[in-house]
Amino acid sequence: MTTAQTPPAPDQDTMALLGLAAEFEFESFVRLAGDSALAPSIAERQVIARSATRALERQDRLVARIAELGGDAAQAMAPFDGVIEDFEQRTTAGTWSERLLKAFIGYAVADDFLRLLAEGADDASRELVASLLGDPDYAELVVGQLSVVLSDDVAASRLALWGRRLVGDALAVIQGAVVRNPAFGRLLARGSATDGTVGEDRVQRVFAVLTAEHTRRMERLGLTA
Amino acid sequence: MTTAQTPPAPDQDTMALLGLAAEFEFESFVRLAGDSALAPSIAERQVIARSATRALERQDRLVARIAELGGDAAQAMAPFDGVIEDFEQRTTAGTWSERLLKAFIGYAVADDFLRLLAEGADDASRELVASLLGDPDYAELVVGQLSVVLSDDVAASRLALWGRRLVGDALAVIQGAVVRNPAFGRLLARGSATDGTVGEDRVQRVFAVLTAEHTRRMERLGLTA
Repeated sequence: MTTAQTPPAPDQDTMALLGLAAEFEFESFVRLAGDSALAPSIAERQVIARSATRALERQDRLVARIAELGGDAAQAMAPFDGVIEDFEQRTTAGTWSERLLKAFIGYAVADDFLRLLAEGADDASRELVASLLGDPDYAELVVGQLSVVLSDDVAASRLALWGRRLVGDALAVIQGAVVRNPAFGRLLARGSATDGTVGEDRVQRVFAVLTAEHTRRMERLGLTA
Repeated sequence: MTTAQTPPAPDQDTMALLGLAAEFEFESFVRLAGDSALAPSIAERQVIARSATRALERQDRLVARIAELGGDAAQAMAPFDGVIEDFEQRTTAGTWSERLLKAFIGYAVADDFLRLLAEGADDASRELVASLLGDPDYAELVVGQLSVVLSDDVAASRLALWGRRLVGDALAVIQGAVVRNPAFGRLLARGSATDGTVGEDRVQRVFAVLTAEHTRRMERLGLTA
């Protein structure tokens, strides 16, 4: 550094959030690219491949925000290396529908968690994180694919069971992340909840919010959560 | 089809070329995305991830050209499903440098082969294929990474040996593709070679050209081919 004045140190909690989000998007890119190769048709393959490139674009925007705040992207992302691995290893999808549902639920729960964390960050970072989440094309693919499978009652109840296992896994991974990273607890406590809870109560509330969002999503898919 | 007149059937040899190229680019996308996750640093990871998304963009342009010629992309690509697998399975890279060199050589030999095939296609398809080939950022990454490794004589001679094995594998895969797909023999025979060879001689020449290009590349890397 040759500047006369050192810029103020970036807020470390926000750096943790942006690092987690950037690493999550990068690993989503890798997973989705791998999934695209397994898709049963070339049309589905293209949708998933494009979702992968969009995840990488989201990573780029998060990396740019980290730089804007004076942080180092590699340093911010490093603690979260392998963040998706833990979720992946808990349960192995047996069919293409299970694989799709697993990715869909995993990404959705992670998105919700990132949005809740971002409520404790500065305005620009919070708006950035909120704007990045969700991928309508991918959601549409999953809904379309599963609606075919769900016309079979046996398959539907198997998938509903699978969905329950997945959300349990996703919440356990998030709980582990909150325990290991005090920054996340602080961000959650700092966030202004619409339900009026603050501080520690707010941290407790997070898991109720994540579960409720999951239930809504499963209903949208026609699965009993 | 409800149109009164059926459009002329697209040239099947060109469809085979464009289908192969599109499938190759798609599978390159998947492989590069997977490689990006293995990169030893976040900087390298980003370069490789971006190369992956560029491969998908190239696939998109090839798919658009197939549609322009009245072909069906899924149908054109399907016969080449797993095209990179054969090359991947022949030899397993033991180190990151070997992995980088493998991808670099594999893509480069494939690019050369596609360019030679394209000489037998219509002008627009030929120009499209020629314009798509090569990824300077990825090449720069490989050259930079290997130049560090090559300062060690033992590592350099190991990598030179590895490079010889790889080009043998790549040429064997291409030979298999030409034997299985008469369209490729016809495209190669139709191409106007700068060395004046035509027809069957031209098909024979292809392997000499691919070997010569490989030797030049290995020299650029400082490896004795």
